[in-house]
Amino acid sequence: MSTVPQFGSPAYGLTRTLEGVSYEQGVARAREALATEGFGVLTEIDVKATLKKKLDVDTRDYVILGACNPPLAHRALQAEPAIGLLLPCNVVVSSDDAGNAVVSAVDPVAMFQVVNRPDVEPLAREVRERLERVLEALGK
Amino acid sequence: MSTVPQFGSPAYGLTRTLEGVSYEQGVARAREALATEGFGVLTEIDVKATLKKKLDVDTRDYVILGACNPPLAHRALQAEPAIGLLLPCNVVVSSDDAGNAVVSAVDPVAMFQVVNRPDVEPLAREVRERLERVLEALGK
Repeated sequence: MSTVPQFGSPAYGLTRTLEGVSYEQGVARAREALATEGFGVLTEIDVKATLKKKLDVDTRDYVILGACNPPLAHRALQAEPAIGLLLPCNVVVSSDDAGNAVVSAVDPVAMFQVVNRPDVEPLAREVRERLERVLEALGK
Repeated sequence: MSTVPQFGSPAYGLTRTLEGVSYEQGVARAREALATEGFGVLTEIDVKATLKKKLDVDTRDYVILGACNPPLAHRALQAEPAIGLLLPCNVVVSSDDAGNAVVSAVDPVAMFQVVNRPDVEPLAREVRERLERVLEALGK
């Protein structure tokens, strides 16, 4: 039994459940779709393995991929040098109770509520459009 | 010349400039202070090196440390399973134009504007208190 509930549909994420797709396949598809949109995966945290090791608790499959599109990250840092507090763009892959992969990318526009820089929001929209294409590509 | 301005004082960060402390010393102190408060550094992105390699641009010293306190992360995931979109807690170390280290931790309470779960906000406050102690410890 996992101590962590199913992922849900957070207002701050772009989320898609891939029916009939395993967690492992979901991770592979997410990486591939991110690469197609120019995002490298700079970091990877296997949350399930980390919490098992550190706390000996059983959680569901859950990985956090830290995705970065270098030209967009550079533009963001030039406009708002503190934006590194919110980088890279997290993409979580988890699985639901039926064993389907769930993929969710953080919504950069939602995050801009916190940044409060309306002049930089068009850049966040550009990143979101790319992440939306990543999510769309997962099912193909 | 760096293409990225000085870090500034973002409303979504807890930020401290360490007068007379080099960037390298700032990184070492940040790691040590995080460990004292139970945060492991799970990820590290050398932004300056990454942007030099990928785009051949010169930016200032800038590293993003992904800090995680496992018991607090587990509690957060149990209450809000999508919170992995906002984990780990980023701690940025950079340097200002005078060569002083600047250390900033993302403010978990500010991030909860986006999460919109007032019932889980006390946990965010607990994380913030620890990060405030991390920042305090840097100057000692």
